[in-house]
Amino acid sequence: MPSHLSLGLDFGTESVRALLVDLRGREHASAVAKYRHGQIIDALPGSTKKLPPHYALQHPQDWIDSAAQATRAALRAAGAKPAEILGIGVDFTSCTMLPTLGDGTPLCFLEWLRQEPLAWPKLWKHHGAQVQTDRINQVARERGEKFLARYGGTIGLEWFFPKMLETLEKAPRVFKAAEVWLEAGDWFVWQLVGGDAATLPRSTCQAGYKGMWSAEDGYPSEDFLGALHPDFARVVTDHMPGRLLAPGTSAGGLGSVMARKLGLREGTPVSAAIIDAHAGVPGAGAAEPGTFVMVLGTSSCHMLNSVEERFVPGVAGIVRDGILPGFVGYETGQAAVGDAFDWLRRITGQRELGALSEQAAALPPGAEGVLCLDWLNGCRTPLMDGSLTGAFTGLTLRHTSAHLYRALLEGSAFGVRWIVELLREHGVPVNRFVATGGLPHHNPLVVEVYADVLGAPVTVHPCKHGPALGAAILGALAAGAFASPNAAIRAMATAKSAPIIKPKTKHRTTYDKVYARYRELAAHHSKNKPSS
Amino acid sequence: MPSHLSLGLDFGTESVRALLVDLRGREHASAVAKYRHGQIIDALPGSTKKLPPHYALQHPQDWIDSAAQATRAALRAAGAKPAEILGIGVDFTSCTMLPTLGDGTPLCFLEWLRQEPLAWPKLWKHHGAQVQTDRINQVARERGEKFLARYGGTIGLEWFFPKMLETLEKAPRVFKAAEVWLEAGDWFVWQLVGGDAATLPRSTCQAGYKGMWSAEDGYPSEDFLGALHPDFARVVTDHMPGRLLAPGTSAGGLGSVMARKLGLREGTPVSAAIIDAHAGVPGAGAAEPGTFVMVLGTSSCHMLNSVEERFVPGVAGIVRDGILPGFVGYETGQAAVGDAFDWLRRITGQRELGALSEQAAALPPGAEGVLCLDWLNGCRTPLMDGSLTGAFTGLTLRHTSAHLYRALLEGSAFGVRWIVELLREHGVPVNRFVATGGLPHHNPLVVEVYADVLGAPVTVHPCKHGPALGAAILGALAAGAFASPNAAIRAMATAKSAPIIKPKTKHRTTYDKVYARYRELAAHHSKNKPSS
Repeated sequence: MPSHLSLGLDFGTESVRALLVDLRGREHASAVAKYRHGQIIDALPGSTKKLPPHYALQHPQDWIDSAAQATRAALRAAGAKPAEILGIGVDFTSCTMLPTLGDGTPLCFLEWLRQEPLAWPKLWKHHGAQVQTDRINQVARERGEKFLARYGGTIGLEWFFPKMLETLEKAPRVFKAAEVWLEAGDWFVWQLVGGDAATLPRSTCQAGYKGMWSAEDGYPSEDFLGALHPDFARVVTDHMPGRLLAPGTSAGGLGSVMARKLGLREGTPVSAAIIDAHAGVPGAGAAEPGTFVMVLGTSSCHMLNSVEERFVPGVAGIVRDGILPGFVGYETGQAAVGDAFDWLRRITGQRELGALSEQAAALPPGAEGVLCLDWLNGCRTPLMDGSLTGAFTGLTLRHTSAHLYRALLEGSAFGVRWIVELLREHGVPVNRFVATGGLPHHNPLVVEVYADVLGAPVTVHPCKHGPALGAAILGALAAGAFASPNAAIRAMATAKSAPIIKPKTKHRTTYDKVYARYRELAAHHSKNKPSS
Repeated sequence: MPSHLSLGLDFGTESVRALLVDLRGREHASAVAKYRHGQIIDALPGSTKKLPPHYALQHPQDWIDSAAQATRAALRAAGAKPAEILGIGVDFTSCTMLPTLGDGTPLCFLEWLRQEPLAWPKLWKHHGAQVQTDRINQVARERGEKFLARYGGTIGLEWFFPKMLETLEKAPRVFKAAEVWLEAGDWFVWQLVGGDAATLPRSTCQAGYKGMWSAEDGYPSEDFLGALHPDFARVVTDHMPGRLLAPGTSAGGLGSVMARKLGLREGTPVSAAIIDAHAGVPGAGAAEPGTFVMVLGTSSCHMLNSVEERFVPGVAGIVRDGILPGFVGYETGQAAVGDAFDWLRRITGQRELGALSEQAAALPPGAEGVLCLDWLNGCRTPLMDGSLTGAFTGLTLRHTSAHLYRALLEGSAFGVRWIVELLREHGVPVNRFVATGGLPHHNPLVVEVYADVLGAPVTVHPCKHGPALGAAILGALAAGAFASPNAAIRAMATAKSAPIIKPKTKHRTTYDKVYARYRELAAHHSKNKPSS
């Protein structure tokens, strides 16, 4: 049998999934393997010494071992031979990153550094670099660094340079020993394809969204980096070697060591890595530019590919080749979605949202005057301010907890509408809406309200493993199985029976009015937040 | 035994209470008698014809019969002889009013009018006069009527002139038959003391707070009334005869018919009537001007006596001799207090406020950033706008239902502080705070928060029957038992063991800051309310 399956490896926070799909998108097998050490939060492996708060580390051997275990299980389940696998795609949490030697050996594998927490990979959620992040933002603003415009004016606490600078300042001997700094997704792909550091494959997705890199200007300048710390000036030049590759382009063929380990054929093409959330875009069947993919979970990540690059203020990341080769990827988001609904469940004393949801669905649009500002975890896009807070207004004695819930759903939908209008105002076309992630499946009312508020149909993509499917699509692209990302996504991720939620046109006028009030409320509350 | 007891008759919405107290304020007996017909809301007595919505009527015979029953029961319980009663005071709901013949016969007692709903007494909560109220306000504003300044610029739906005008326009034959229009409290006192219509005793309290009357200017002018309706021009001149008397001054001696009915001695002095809520001021021991009496229930009524008359914008009623003879009475209020706390209990899915109250008490002042605008039933003082709505701001995922409750208590307290500051800014001294009504006794946290936010001690008056005690004090005053209201209140209503809740000074700075944010929020929300 000729090679006809693509392998998607989806590295999450606790485990990795291996998914085998064919070129028509049919799932042949899927398997999950947990990381032996999970998240390293309390103490390093083999140690009882407590780690500082906000630390979150991982073990590189877990990634290899769990990927091997999951891949072999999937192959077994599919009854597939190694030769049937045509390509491999990898998505990974980000920014999860680590320091290595020039040959790729993680520093935490070295005897003399294994007791150093900062020699270990820092997980995306490691929050040890607040001081460094603040300084990076301050110096960048003072110097008017151009890259700020691509990130809505603010560099994030969880990104690549803050994590490197944290190591330099807190564990200088680790920083000194680091010959190469890189994203975990890139490290894994490098392990797959081998080769020396000078040609190690780096993803334009991770580099663009988390590493302040752009195709046009590259990484931040030595001048800027030197202004942060004299020993930081040459970190890019000396310690970030490699080739920058868009997801879906080939990083090379699978090397012999890893081929044996995973049970695959040597030489199988491997795609450059992609961030897990971003893999959800091809995974949700968003083939055309202009498709707004809403990955709805505890928080929401909304992604969009476009032909043109426009600097839209308040958009968290604007990266050419950031999601798919040939397109500019826009990443926006809302900081509390499922989390906020669950908060409302808690404060209204409910065990589950079911009853509240039924009552809220029966209420008219506008929740009979109750209006909600959905900033319960700050505002990500477009205000990029984690210190902003939520509100309910228009409350009277006749309102019930169902009114609060409906208002919260509507507030969340108004947040999406604001982002969409912002993109359009700046010349970024938005033509179609796809909802994916866990939330749309167990909370259908949220999609109905989104469709009504957007005044546009929303396709609910039924894929169970969106990011893994996205990774498999990139694997097929890297193998040259399709002429374009568009063709690959159409063939592999078009859901035949995806429900399309249509907007109720009779609600349009009401929602236009209430949305105007939401914007007015947002403007007032962002200008008048209390000083803490 | 010489006469040493005063009788307070407290006419509520469903029943009347008779309270016998001596001149040192000791309760000798108390008895309650329900009205046989209660509130007449569905159909007139002896009829099955449904009344229009918003109608609420009463039966005048109920007042007489129930007062007799309660008084006799109290006398029996106290073992008191008629000669032991030195004076009678009457407080009554308001504006509860009725049309009568010249001899005081209620029109609803006439055979040919007993099927006419508007021939019956209208209870305070009868809401049939919306159209008439709107016109009265509009015409008064157009003409720049001076009386508006005493009512915060707005005449209420439940007041005396709207209810008369409603009758003229909806039941002209009733209006034509009405020889005298008067408050139910005044009607009852007239029944007690007898005499003809020209000298019937009218309370300056009811006239001032509900009848647009003032000592200086009298009732509205014929010009103004004629502008409302040509047949309304002479309603005061021709159909509102009588003497205006301050509560606590004698309306005359008890007549023989009613003396027999109630089981009292003919000639017993009777005080002019007072509104039930206002009777709570002497009843709560507020002898000195400058004592701010907070009657806390489902809504709150805050009353204050002062020496000077100041027109304070937004204060609902400013009436000379309105509460006690010799003082200017200021009436302010908050439209949702106990009601709002109960609403929060409901939306948080609690059976009772107990657990929430304990958790809220343990939170720091300022509710960790949550701020509440307590306008869940509109804003009474100072904005006089029933269409305003409530809000919560500063919400984050870490907040609980207890934060909402604490913020609501604080919002309610900020509402009080605003009223107090408003009075002081306009030269009305506020020196002391007394909390009374049902709420302080079963919700002590509310008084603690009020004291902290006001930065002043709050006395919780323990009287069980505040208005009835107030009425009895007025009865003793009318009998000449005391040289001044001050002396009567000190003797009869000073609670020996009233708990005084002291403010926690360490919370002062925080509450000053949060109060400033409350005012800012109030300003924004009152300027930006949605058009409905």
